[in-house]
Amino acid sequence: MPVLSIRDATRSDLCFIIGLIAHDTVLDLIDDPAQADGDDYAAAFQAIDSDPNQHLLVAEIDCTPVGTFQLTFTLGIFRRGAWRCTIEGVHVSSEHRNKRIGEAMMVWAIERARERRCSMVQLTSNKKRTDAHRFYERLGFSRSHEGFKLYI
Amino acid sequence: MPVLSIRDATRSDLCFIIGLIAHDTVLDLIDDPAQADGDDYAAAFQAIDSDPNQHLLVAEIDCTPVGTFQLTFTLGIFRRGAWRCTIEGVHVSSEHRNKRIGEAMMVWAIERARERRCSMVQLTSNKKRTDAHRFYERLGFSRSHEGFKLYI
Repeated sequence: MPVLSIRDATRSDLCFIIGLIAHDTVLDLIDDPAQADGDDYAAAFQAIDSDPNQHLLVAEIDCTPVGTFQLTFTLGIFRRGAWRCTIEGVHVSSEHRNKRIGEAMMVWAIERARERRCSMVQLTSNKKRTDAHRFYERLGFSRSHEGFKLYI
Repeated sequence: MPVLSIRDATRSDLCFIIGLIAHDTVLDLIDDPAQADGDDYAAAFQAIDSDPNQHLLVAEIDCTPVGTFQLTFTLGIFRRGAWRCTIEGVHVSSEHRNKRIGEAMMVWAIERARERRCSMVQLTSNKKRTDAHRFYERLGFSRSHEGFKLYI
């Protein structure tokens, strides 16, 4: 298997990231990679990049981006003031599926959460993504919660 | 109905907040309100309090705390770099249930999310909390996702 590396995203990765989001068949989004240089995306990227608790990441093989995900570290009072790691925006290029890239990305995320002394890693997955649910359970996640969303 | 007010938590609210968590019958936690002055909780409170994107809140009636919740604001790339509001740690004192306090807290949270121009409010709820699920659906939330947790 080719070596996968994972690194912080740069502004020049936005076109790739937005392209993955735009091709997602479950999400009903308004994103267009042709607008990756727009002010909206630049402001969001800058805010994420300057926040030590938010990380936008790109996975690549041989210098070619193949996947993306985002990590957010938050504190709560419960569990004696424990950190949590939330994983969002997990996408792998369609031409690179079934190569265990998603698994490598999640294992990497769990390792970073351990380094940051998190007590828990959490994510939600649309109920339509039944393959993803089995994937997360194989990685040890428990499907213990209902995920609620309200678009405003 | 008495007037409910919602404000940022202070350090002196930690004993109340930890007490609510410790009495939760679904969570299996290690928290003890007798240790509210401990370093773990103080460090977590300080980090939350100094982060403009995290808010620990207390609801009170006639200067008496009756509930708590936490809001976290995060940015993503999708939806043209939109903000999301995540609600966690929602608890109401057992002696103040069935007074629509939880509803008032969630309506307040959704208003704050609108003010911060979020595109979405999200939360997860343990599958055992079936009453809470109906409550969130009545508020307009869609139970569209599975919520996965991995304790590490």
